[in-house]
Amino acid sequence: MTDKKNKDSSNLSHPFRGTGGKPSLPQGTRDFGPDVVRKRQYILNTIKSVFELYGFQPLETPAMENLETLMGKYGEEGDKLIFKILNNGLDNPSKEQQVREEFEKVLQGRNTKAITERALKYDLTIPFARYVAMNHNQLTFPFKRYQIQPVWRADRPQKGRYREFYQCDADVVGSNSLINEVELTNIYNDAFRRLGINNYELRINSRKILQALAEVSGGVDKMIDITIAIDKLDKIGIEKVKEELSGKGLTTDQIGVIENYLNINGSNEEKLTAIKKLFADSSTAKQGIEQIEFVVNQTPNSHPDSYRDQTPNLIIDFTLARGLNYYTGIIFEVKAPAEIKIGSIGGGGRYDDLTGLFGVPNIPGVGISFGVDRIYDVMDELKLFPNAIEVGTQVLFFNLGAEESKTAYDLLQQLRQKGIASEIYHEPTKFDKQFKYAEKKNIPFAIIIGSKEIETKTCVIKDLRSGEQRSVAFESLPEFSFV
Amino acid sequence: MTDKKNKDSSNLSHPFRGTGGKPSLPQGTRDFGPDVVRKRQYILNTIKSVFELYGFQPLETPAMENLETLMGKYGEEGDKLIFKILNNGLDNPSKEQQVREEFEKVLQGRNTKAITERALKYDLTIPFARYVAMNHNQLTFPFKRYQIQPVWRADRPQKGRYREFYQCDADVVGSNSLINEVELTNIYNDAFRRLGINNYELRINSRKILQALAEVSGGVDKMIDITIAIDKLDKIGIEKVKEELSGKGLTTDQIGVIENYLNINGSNEEKLTAIKKLFADSSTAKQGIEQIEFVVNQTPNSHPDSYRDQTPNLIIDFTLARGLNYYTGIIFEVKAPAEIKIGSIGGGGRYDDLTGLFGVPNIPGVGISFGVDRIYDVMDELKLFPNAIEVGTQVLFFNLGAEESKTAYDLLQQLRQKGIASEIYHEPTKFDKQFKYAEKKNIPFAIIIGSKEIETKTCVIKDLRSGEQRSVAFESLPEFSFV
Repeated sequence: MTDKKNKDSSNLSHPFRGTGGKPSLPQGTRDFGPDVVRKRQYILNTIKSVFELYGFQPLETPAMENLETLMGKYGEEGDKLIFKILNNGLDNPSKEQQVREEFEKVLQGRNTKAITERALKYDLTIPFARYVAMNHNQLTFPFKRYQIQPVWRADRPQKGRYREFYQCDADVVGSNSLINEVELTNIYNDAFRRLGINNYELRINSRKILQALAEVSGGVDKMIDITIAIDKLDKIGIEKVKEELSGKGLTTDQIGVIENYLNINGSNEEKLTAIKKLFADSSTAKQGIEQIEFVVNQTPNSHPDSYRDQTPNLIIDFTLARGLNYYTGIIFEVKAPAEIKIGSIGGGGRYDDLTGLFGVPNIPGVGISFGVDRIYDVMDELKLFPNAIEVGTQVLFFNLGAEESKTAYDLLQQLRQKGIASEIYHEPTKFDKQFKYAEKKNIPFAIIIGSKEIETKTCVIKDLRSGEQRSVAFESLPEFSFV
Repeated sequence: MTDKKNKDSSNLSHPFRGTGGKPSLPQGTRDFGPDVVRKRQYILNTIKSVFELYGFQPLETPAMENLETLMGKYGEEGDKLIFKILNNGLDNPSKEQQVREEFEKVLQGRNTKAITERALKYDLTIPFARYVAMNHNQLTFPFKRYQIQPVWRADRPQKGRYREFYQCDADVVGSNSLINEVELTNIYNDAFRRLGINNYELRINSRKILQALAEVSGGVDKMIDITIAIDKLDKIGIEKVKEELSGKGLTTDQIGVIENYLNINGSNEEKLTAIKKLFADSSTAKQGIEQIEFVVNQTPNSHPDSYRDQTPNLIIDFTLARGLNYYTGIIFEVKAPAEIKIGSIGGGGRYDDLTGLFGVPNIPGVGISFGVDRIYDVMDELKLFPNAIEVGTQVLFFNLGAEESKTAYDLLQQLRQKGIASEIYHEPTKFDKQFKYAEKKNIPFAIIIGSKEIETKTCVIKDLRSGEQRSVAFESLPEFSFV
């Protein structure tokens, strides 16, 4: 055994040594080149500025969490999709016996700490809960935080689904007030309008109403079955939903009530009238209806209004269920403009107890998230990114030689002092090559300084979009308007 | 075996199930609360704006890389400090035999893919090299990129050293021009001055000069030994360095040359004069001296200058060695202002071949990095963070009841339209509690709207810092200057 080990080591000095050669990226991960980073930053900064406007504060938690912080929080399926980090030093010979035993436990399906104790975060909510539980004595409640960070899931990669992706969340915890729900609907509105996505749809419902529905059609213990079935309505249609409900043991009468419920439509007001009629006797429904009315009435984008435009973005949707069972009150889902077939670009809702899992009970909250990757796709398709964000460098100084570039460099530094992003070509070479560099980098202006220009203390400014050029004195250059 | 497994599973349904209870953070990782995030963002945004001013473009690479992209790139010690990610599905019974065999290989110190194929990035340079190698046909060279992202190292955590921390790098690749070195020294200068760290020291040397030193004192094959010894000069002192060199087989004469070399001091000009004398016959040294002179002469912060202040920040330091052997030309190191005992806050240098490791040869480059955590500590100690960045919300509307808060909410939305970050207290309650919330969140203004104010269509604005208060008509509120 020892011999074998030594022999192996002579070929490969380390157990994990790579083979080199053509590199690649792990499946489901992406590089973001300059243009994409700029566009993504535009989205994130816009949303961030709205969060700040509403008094939300930034939080960042580590990529790594203790494994036990994450496990058991996302269901059996979720647990499997958590990326676990191998403990270091596993190849340390002195630990071999211990590691061997622990690994045997992994194979036997039991907990093991010698193999992995840490994992990559799976969402932003559980790390937020962990943070609040650890710091609740120092925090000011209601605590409003936003968090924009990557998360990791070992999902099968497919179009639009990645193993590493950003989440962008805002939550208020420590308050039961519905004002928070109103704030969050307005955050959605302000953010999407600033991004130019005007005809998004913010669909809203209350889990209380779904609970009322369960009460009158199969009993409260059927609520999960009913919400899971309703949640699929968009994808599978009403007939399949009815089949599924029948399979769960609901009677024809009960399914009839659910069908009536799902058929409610019209304007927000018409829907409210219909639901009040359908659930006239349910005190649970009454709570849910009051929640929805409060939010709709206080939200300018639910009706035509003096300082908004005429499109109502906030739409009551009683078919909205949201799969996640921890929601207890208002639930949200944002749909992309109808012309883009991309589905949900955001969602959220109210939950009763964020931190109970971590031993700190009675901290209710409500939160929303923005689907950054999909918002990117919507904006790309609708051409909503401003042109300006794709321009980095404004001015390229051509390099005509050692002496010329020294003069150019002084002027270059003066432009930078004025806040104008500028470069000098790295070496004296043919104009062609320097023009090509400017073109590829989308630089709108070139400045040319040769020996003649040094003599006359003027430079030539060329607008590379129009081809127009003009002479400007060195001393006036810092004041020149590069637009 | 099957029985045992089932029995275990009945207690713990999943091998990695956590135990719940009091949560904690993994060793060496940190949460960043609101104040810290704001301060860190201030540093990063400042540096970023300088990178952009110099025509550098943003790049983001995934946290996860293929293990073979990273392994073998950081030396034997580095390999051990890479966080490896456990492959998913290891507890899948159908894979048990395969996993068992692969794990046996781990224990025997051999490569294994069934256990881990991915890892967390260890620095930004290798992922950048991997990106350039994969995309070199599409990139415009010289390619100037900056990258600000976290990296992970399984170092033993200690004060100021974390397992998850940000790196902040700028590199130019595809150019041998020394203009790039000049640009990078100016980036350091602009960034540190914008941050208010005026008396930093940017120390500069060339590996060519160290090579010349090796040539005259022990031979080129001793270069690594000599640089490693010199690199420790600050920490262990000249006597220990001499001992170490003697241990490496250098003669007393050779060590004498090195001591003369290390004793060179004075102004930049005096040092250049001394080094030229010491290495009068070395063509290698001549190259290095030319490199340094080019950078020093073109860099305003190396001498008193009209548009800079009188402090020279750029200091030639022939004792600067930089441990990393891939540097081939100019090397940099930034030292914090002398009054702060914190050491290096940045560093970098020129390398000959970034992407050769990945099968794409002949892409030279030069890069620098900023030590974000230490810069944070320096700025905290010197109190250089502007007060303004710690204010989030400007205005808190007090909540005096359902009717009052509706009126307040309309005005609140008008302030937000004007870009004033504002909040409304989430529920009607005692003034005390609302004042306390404002105080804890560092909110400078409160606006109070009661039934009397609704009648007169005025509100009371209270400056919470001075206690001063005044009445303002609703319609004038959006124009009020909250300063």
